[in-house]
Amino acid sequence: MAKIEVAWDAYLNETVDALPDGLLLASLDAEGQPNAMAIGWGTVGIVWGRAMFVALVRHSRYTFDCVQATGDFTVNVPYAHQADAVALCGTVSGRDRDKFAECGFTAVDSGMVKTPHIGECALVYECQVVQSTDVVPENFDPAIISEFYADGDFHRIYFGEILRVLADEGFGA
Amino acid sequence: MAKIEVAWDAYLNETVDALPDGLLLASLDAEGQPNAMAIGWGTVGIVWGRAMFVALVRHSRYTFDCVQATGDFTVNVPYAHQADAVALCGTVSGRDRDKFAECGFTAVDSGMVKTPHIGECALVYECQVVQSTDVVPENFDPAIISEFYADGDFHRIYFGEILRVLADEGFGA
Repeated sequence: MAKIEVAWDAYLNETVDALPDGLLLASLDAEGQPNAMAIGWGTVGIVWGRAMFVALVRHSRYTFDCVQATGDFTVNVPYAHQADAVALCGTVSGRDRDKFAECGFTAVDSGMVKTPHIGECALVYECQVVQSTDVVPENFDPAIISEFYADGDFHRIYFGEILRVLADEGFGA
Repeated sequence: MAKIEVAWDAYLNETVDALPDGLLLASLDAEGQPNAMAIGWGTVGIVWGRAMFVALVRHSRYTFDCVQATGDFTVNVPYAHQADAVALCGTVSGRDRDKFAECGFTAVDSGMVKTPHIGECALVYECQVVQSTDVVPENFDPAIISEFYADGDFHRIYFGEILRVLADEGFGA
């Protein structure tokens, strides 16, 4: 479907409300192969006077290596009917599997960043990393440590400046 | 005006769109005195399965000492007619001045956190800090360093779990 550029904050509610079902964070590996990770966490707003998508990626993930190398990513908001693809992207690693191919995703060149976006998704945020920092284990609420970090595999926090947002024509209408 | 509890994501767009005009981050000092800082930056979403407001505070600020001590804050969305109060809160320090008194703000007990909220504001996020970490100077886009950090006064990033959101009855209607 043809995508049109929209204001960065045109679909804030739709994006945040889709998090519990999973968004797809796409990245590009050293061989130029796109990869997609399911994310249920993220925040959106303004920092340093720039529109920002804040994403968290565990150091162990293939996506971590990719984003560290390229310094960019895309956040793709899927349609409800793509739930199986989201589930696949949330359970296998791009180290071993070509998730774009298995999901039938088309890697569409992004205008503003190196990482492509997923042609079949409804809405896309093209994000350039302008700051990254790690969570501080000793600064966590203990309940969060036991729930998410029992294995010590902590997250890096990426502040991705939203350079462009594309939406399927008619999305949200 | 009487406030009612609303869903944490009921006014995402209104909150993010108000950032350029300034929100008020309230905190409580060691003497139990409330303080308010104007913020133009922030992100909202879901992290660790919890609704989250991400706020940045420079280490030099009085608010920094306050949030470090209490581990909580409130984010207050003002009405347009409160622009003068926001401007005052953005230019003087709570170390020297009682900004609540000067702005004619009522410190209303928050139900979920130690920091009070501002009775006269339209919308309030009661936030408990569940993670804090510092920006990493060497991981910044150089343009951001020269624009915001020429003096080396960097920000701490606070992840405030949104425990409750209160809105004036009729706000946004």
